[in-house]
Amino acid sequence: MCGIFAVYNDIEAAELTYLGLYALQHRGQESAGIVSSDGKKFYSKIGQGLVSDVFEKDDILRLKGRYAIGHTRYSTTGVSTIVNAQPLIIRHKKVNLAVAHNGNITNALLLRRKLEEDGAIFQTTSDSEVILHLMMKSKEKEIHNKIKEALTPIKGAYSVIFLFNDKIFAARDPHGFRSLCIGKLKNSYILSSESCGFDLIGATYLREIEPGEIMIIENKKIKSIIFSQREKKAQCIFEHIYFARPDSKMFGESVYEVRKNLGEELAKESPPEKESIVIAIPDSANISSLGYAQHSKRPLEFGFIRNHYIGRTFIEPKQSIRDFRAKVKYNPVEEVVKNKVLVVVDDSIVRGTTSKKLVRMLKRCGAKKTHYRISSPPIKYPCHYGIDTPNKNELVAAKKSLEEIRKDLGVNSLRYLSIKGLLNSVNGKKCKYCLACFTGEYPV
Amino acid sequence: MCGIFAVYNDIEAAELTYLGLYALQHRGQESAGIVSSDGKKFYSKIGQGLVSDVFEKDDILRLKGRYAIGHTRYSTTGVSTIVNAQPLIIRHKKVNLAVAHNGNITNALLLRRKLEEDGAIFQTTSDSEVILHLMMKSKEKEIHNKIKEALTPIKGAYSVIFLFNDKIFAARDPHGFRSLCIGKLKNSYILSSESCGFDLIGATYLREIEPGEIMIIENKKIKSIIFSQREKKAQCIFEHIYFARPDSKMFGESVYEVRKNLGEELAKESPPEKESIVIAIPDSANISSLGYAQHSKRPLEFGFIRNHYIGRTFIEPKQSIRDFRAKVKYNPVEEVVKNKVLVVVDDSIVRGTTSKKLVRMLKRCGAKKTHYRISSPPIKYPCHYGIDTPNKNELVAAKKSLEEIRKDLGVNSLRYLSIKGLLNSVNGKKCKYCLACFTGEYPV
Amino acid sequence: MCGIFAVYNDIEAAELTYLGLYALQHRGQESAGIVSSDGKKFYSKIGQGLVSDVFEKDDILRLKGRYAIGHTRYSTTGVSTIVNAQPLIIRHKKVNLAVAHNGNITNALLLRRKLEEDGAIFQTTSDSEVILHLMMKSKEKEIHNKIKEALTPIKGAYSVIFLFNDKIFAARDPHGFRSLCIGKLKNSYILSSESCGFDLIGATYLREIEPGEIMIIENKKIKSIIFSQREKKAQCIFEHIYFARPDSKMFGESVYEVRKNLGEELAKESPPEKESIVIAIPDSANISSLGYAQHSKRPLEFGFIRNHYIGRTFIEPKQSIRDFRAKVKYNPVEEVVKNKVLVVVDDSIVRGTTSKKLVRMLKRCGAKKTHYRISSPPIKYPCHYGIDTPNKNELVAAKKSLEEIRKDLGVNSLRYLSIKGLLNSVNGKKCKYCLACFTGEYPV
Amino acid sequence: MCGIFAVYNDIEAAELTYLGLYALQHRGQESAGIVSSDGKKFYSKIGQGLVSDVFEKDDILRLKGRYAIGHTRYSTTGVSTIVNAQPLIIRHKKVNLAVAHNGNITNALLLRRKLEEDGAIFQTTSDSEVILHLMMKSKEKEIHNKIKEALTPIKGAYSVIFLFNDKIFAARDPHGFRSLCIGKLKNSYILSSESCGFDLIGATYLREIEPGEIMIIENKKIKSIIFSQREKKAQCIFEHIYFARPDSKMFGESVYEVRKNLGEELAKESPPEKESIVIAIPDSANISSLGYAQHSKRPLEFGFIRNHYIGRTFIEPKQSIRDFRAKVKYNPVEEVVKNKVLVVVDDSIVRGTTSKKLVRMLKRCGAKKTHYRISSPPIKYPCHYGIDTPNKNELVAAKKSLEEIRKDLGVNSLRYLSIKGLLNSVNGKKCKYCLACFTGEYPV
Repeated sequence: MCGIFAVYNDIEAAELTYLGLYALQHRGQESAGIVSSDGKKFYSKIGQGLVSDVFEKDDILRLKGRYAIGHTRYSTTGVSTIVNAQPLIIRHKKVNLAVAHNGNITNALLLRRKLEEDGAIFQTTSDSEVILHLMMKSKEKEIHNKIKEALTPIKGAYSVIFLFNDKIFAARDPHGFRSLCIGKLKNSYILSSESCGFDLIGATYLREIEPGEIMIIENKKIKSIIFSQREKKAQCIFEHIYFARPDSKMFGESVYEVRKNLGEELAKESPPEKESIVIAIPDSANISSLGYAQHSKRPLEFGFIRNHYIGRTFIEPKQSIRDFRAKVKYNPVEEVVKNKVLVVVDDSIVRGTTSKKLVRMLKRCGAKKTHYRISSPPIKYPCHYGIDTPNKNELVAAKKSLEEIRKDLGVNSLRYLSIKGLLNSVNGKKCKYCLACFTGEYPV
Repeated sequence: MCGIFAVYNDIEAAELTYLGLYALQHRGQESAGIVSSDGKKFYSKIGQGLVSDVFEKDDILRLKGRYAIGHTRYSTTGVSTIVNAQPLIIRHKKVNLAVAHNGNITNALLLRRKLEEDGAIFQTTSDSEVILHLMMKSKEKEIHNKIKEALTPIKGAYSVIFLFNDKIFAARDPHGFRSLCIGKLKNSYILSSESCGFDLIGATYLREIEPGEIMIIENKKIKSIIFSQREKKAQCIFEHIYFARPDSKMFGESVYEVRKNLGEELAKESPPEKESIVIAIPDSANISSLGYAQHSKRPLEFGFIRNHYIGRTFIEPKQSIRDFRAKVKYNPVEEVVKNKVLVVVDDSIVRGTTSKKLVRMLKRCGAKKTHYRISSPPIKYPCHYGIDTPNKNELVAAKKSLEEIRKDLGVNSLRYLSIKGLLNSVNGKKCKYCLACFTGEYPV
Repeated sequence: MCGIFAVYNDIEAAELTYLGLYALQHRGQESAGIVSSDGKKFYSKIGQGLVSDVFEKDDILRLKGRYAIGHTRYSTTGVSTIVNAQPLIIRHKKVNLAVAHNGNITNALLLRRKLEEDGAIFQTTSDSEVILHLMMKSKEKEIHNKIKEALTPIKGAYSVIFLFNDKIFAARDPHGFRSLCIGKLKNSYILSSESCGFDLIGATYLREIEPGEIMIIENKKIKSIIFSQREKKAQCIFEHIYFARPDSKMFGESVYEVRKNLGEELAKESPPEKESIVIAIPDSANISSLGYAQHSKRPLEFGFIRNHYIGRTFIEPKQSIRDFRAKVKYNPVEEVVKNKVLVVVDDSIVRGTTSKKLVRMLKRCGAKKTHYRISSPPIKYPCHYGIDTPNKNELVAAKKSLEEIRKDLGVNSLRYLSIKGLLNSVNGKKCKYCLACFTGEYPV
Repeated sequence: MCGIFAVYNDIEAAELTYLGLYALQHRGQESAGIVSSDGKKFYSKIGQGLVSDVFEKDDILRLKGRYAIGHTRYSTTGVSTIVNAQPLIIRHKKVNLAVAHNGNITNALLLRRKLEEDGAIFQTTSDSEVILHLMMKSKEKEIHNKIKEALTPIKGAYSVIFLFNDKIFAARDPHGFRSLCIGKLKNSYILSSESCGFDLIGATYLREIEPGEIMIIENKKIKSIIFSQREKKAQCIFEHIYFARPDSKMFGESVYEVRKNLGEELAKESPPEKESIVIAIPDSANISSLGYAQHSKRPLEFGFIRNHYIGRTFIEPKQSIRDFRAKVKYNPVEEVVKNKVLVVVDDSIVRGTTSKKLVRMLKRCGAKKTHYRISSPPIKYPCHYGIDTPNKNELVAAKKSLEEIRKDLGVNSLRYLSIKGLLNSVNGKKCKYCLACFTGEYPV
């Protein structure tokens, strides 16, 4: 998962892109980069770490021009090194081209091998570089036709932004796995993975780029071409469950509302025991726990305090402090938990290891009973489209029964939301969302 | 405000101190330091920035010995430079001594000038250094007597830890402005500014160091002497309102419970309009808003999403984005706010500038009405005991009437909690807490 | 001009390469890099600055394997950035290939444009990358045949080393502009731009790679193929005059002896005035001044002291100290110079600006007369083969007469060595050396 | 040994000080620092490493004011850490004071203990800090009287510069162990450890500060007081033999001339074998070898090439390359050495380990015979006055006879210069110089 952002035609293009990336920081903390253009020359700064660590004031000043694209990376494919940080830039003949990509190309390796047979040399191990090589191979004259030709053989998930001189292009794969929105700020156009990127800079949300659409922003105007027959929409429902910020619009729906619906559906399907109190695993389950508590008329409490100062390179103690990795992030509030019947709401269970530790911490604080409620169905299949889920054999729900997991966690009851409940929470009918991680039915 | 921590007699003394500082990170992000001792030699690492930035794995390994003290600094007095970062270390004759100090010595400058007259040379501009010079001047033989003699002329707020060879000493000023707790972990003793430092490492809370007490930890035992006639207790109530972590005990009371009481008292005194919803300024007002919502039976919603990735050196845009500094931290959720009557709960108003921006953001999102509720009385006087409040003429409540502030903020109503409501929220009667920032009655 | 080095089959391959680069440091201070191989995997460290700055102890330890190549860069073509630092590495299909190149490819741009037409994407602006693309285009199976095919269309100067799994390949252009030597150290083979690289690690000099030769080092043996009809040898005579270290063998001749010969020939052609003393511009003219002094039986003195601590980023004073840039490097010794008739020996005059300053400094110290003697002919033409000479119109000897230059410098007499004297100083007859910078007769 | 420098009253005070330190770089490469003053406020930059590494352009710009002092440190006493880097700065009462010190205080520990008894706290382990504490203890009003009072109890070697608001003070110990010169540049006064610091910035040498003199530079004028009865002069003769730059004046004599005299005296006392050639250990013995060669009418050759790119943190190979540490610095020129009878001139022998390696290298290059000539007497006693000689039992001449050392080195003959020859080389009679390292007669 990554965050991508672009500004077309603003005197502060790089600054606004910096802010946009900052608002998209939750989509990737591994690296960040901005490429700007003054119409002729490119300026870039790309580095490892958080947006606020990568860019110094001087960097932003050096990033001249009215056009800029940016990227925050959360490693999915490609080894995690600076060389794979984006945007990727190439200088080809006398042309500069930069690209920022969110998603995962499922046939990248195959395409790469074919290109290498013909002598192509790749700079990175990132699957995004395939797009650039296909474009450079294209004999088309117009950039958007080169893009079209390059995207045609590509399978999988991609939302992608191109910067070329004084033009910006955006494209989204025919299934529309990953979102990409366009907004407006005075005379500028803005592209952002999520609408929360618009809020910070005061831009207005216009719409999502459509699946199979190439958007051309040039001469201060937007044009659009459809480069592919529209496939069945397969938007990633996990963005709503976990990944996106609750103050964003995603695939046209409010994440906050969907997340609250998930809690309500969960409360309908698996209501709480009497006398129980509801607590969330913060911050991702805050909204669904609120939905659960309101619908079930049980009091919400802040049972866990989350430490937000976690650095990237935290040092673990030599002699293991029990449940250390969970403890360092979450601390239960004894006064809330002690002698209480708890309904703990979480967004999902992947490996189950953290959940187990959290339950153990609650027990040590004197919880009387613990009921675990998950605001999504069991994850049984890995994602091929850009979310960093582990192999199938590390997914606890792929290997164990509900009762086995319950015992593992050491809770009094465990309930997941049903697929039906999940679909009730979104406006879309089944056909609009990709549910592959729950059902194993992969769209590509 | 600072955080201080110590470990007596543990093979992982530096590691546990690192974790303790990490749990106290909210008490100061400017610098962090650890000094350890193997009984003879000192080892230290002190640097600017967050705990997770200052210490590398190798640093911790180099910090040998079974004894360690640590400090996280939030600049109050003394210019903010590395030279003022703590713990302060001195080597005097053949003796090593390190000190970590939380608080503010009100007669530091006077004492310093007197010492300088006699030829003393100060290394730092920190008021804490005065303690060391007074100790070195003392002709007493025993360290705890040197400490006693040094603390006698000192006025103001201090919780202070000393490391000397294989001994650790702790002291708290006679009024007890700043807390300092002692805990136990197997055969080790632990000192921490707040009890949340114990939770992460699995230590058990024993008690607070008493005002006017010097605690001597040596030969694996605790001894205690009273170095001063006990003064009227004057514990900082602002720790409960804002500064301490809600999962801590502070002055013997649960911060979570006190904060929830504040919200309830506020709801009793200034109940919401019908049909309103309650939202907090996250995260400091989360618990009080919950107390308010529960007591007034109005729904709580997460109206603001807080961005936790704010770096220390955020770059502001050249051309001002309106309300930028607030926006970068908080984003309202349009779906929650639009067309609603809001009760916004905040912990306090200092200058009023951020509050104003937040209200403006809510309005732009379509809030119908906004009622502002503050879970503490108006702050009219600066703090002299370690909390970084501005001068009196920057405190909005010192200059303007309630109605003027309400107009400034642009809200439909504004209510503070009364002093009486505040005291109802804590177990202590008035005499136990310092209320100087509200009343101007300074204990020293 | 660059330095290249390689170690084949030594347990300390990276360490020896580090030492080799260190001995070749005078050939380029802009960047340094080492790539090692354990036969399967590559390990690399490449950075900007001096060898001693780029590599930390840990870097060397990480550079595993019995095979390594290294490079020190002195920017000639390609912008001076880290991306152009060598060795260049590519991963193509499942193959790793690294290359270190010394020289200048004269038709690089042409070849590059052609490759780009076919869709090739270049990572760097370095001309060396063309070799890699041509190799990857080759349908040959064997690496040495790929090399042969790639080198065929390339014109200009190159000595080049390739690392591939557990094999090392070396090649030199058909004219042999730049040297490349092979040596032996126990069971290892060593490649080095100059023989001084062998001395430091205790290796024995075997011979130079021949012009037009590809050397294949695999299975602990050396094989050799000739990839090109041998062209007229055109070895760079400037290596002897200035660039190479005096303790090196270069093109089979001792640089020290050649340089001393230059001084003697110069003394024969332009003998000193009676009563004069001989001083050198240190350190490059030390040996030739010695030859001059010995042959003419005049005393040598150390008239200039050179400051060897010059950093790369020396800060110049705002208000110009007269002749600052020369002064910071050279200081005349007043006691040597005062009231003396001086013969100043220098290796060459390029722009003439430094010489002018040096002369002025001597005069200020009270020199009675100054006779300037240059141990090479006037440089009238730029070098196309890797030496960083300026454009023709910046070469003082291309624009001005001897008398004009003499006046510019402000010396009593000025004499250059003749072409004949130059050729007398080397064993080779004219056909063996490139004299293009003096004569304008470019071999390619 | 250290270098100290000061500029009084120049708009570019910090820049000129930077240049001065740069010219004094050979006197200490461990750390460098500059403190400037605009008359009221101090500005400083102090760091570890070379002058060119410590200071960035921005640093120099920040160092405002017309007054500046600088220091380059070569660790003698005090652990080598940044805390001991100079100039030392203190802020005392409302006064700023900075000090740069060259030399070694022999009773520093004693004075320190006494001060600590009275409660003084030291910041560093440097002996220079004692001066500051003694000054702060003084009840005198005028700074120069404080200095006088502070210097009175101090024994040993010191040349010291003080910066105070818009005044600069300089002092030299009564024996005058270490030099300190004053020069003039337009309306500015310049202080420098050696006169080569004047040349670079174009200043004129005036004179040396006298032993026992305090110089006061204020109100654009120089005043002088004598703070001590003049003791027998004991200037360090080793400055002439090895330490100072040959283009400096030192104690009123030209280092170049003294060094050449040393070679001539050596040639008189220990003439060369017929048919021999003379080579120097570069660069310190260059001038004395020239004196030797000229006087004995034997040809000088450059037998060793010195690598000037040695970094501070050179990585040694794991498996020892024989004589590595010498080899990395010096490489013999085979063509010079082979089959020759050599007279090798060196300035001194300390431990003898490097000499041994150099001789071995010459033999491996085929030297027929090697005669070692040392341009100073045998060093048998450690220096207490600032030169970093090892303990007596590491000094080879303190433990072994001439014949034993000759055998150790493996040379055909070994001769030192006599004390008489040494004294003939300087203008001074015996009473003017300290010869303690040769004779054991310590002046203090």
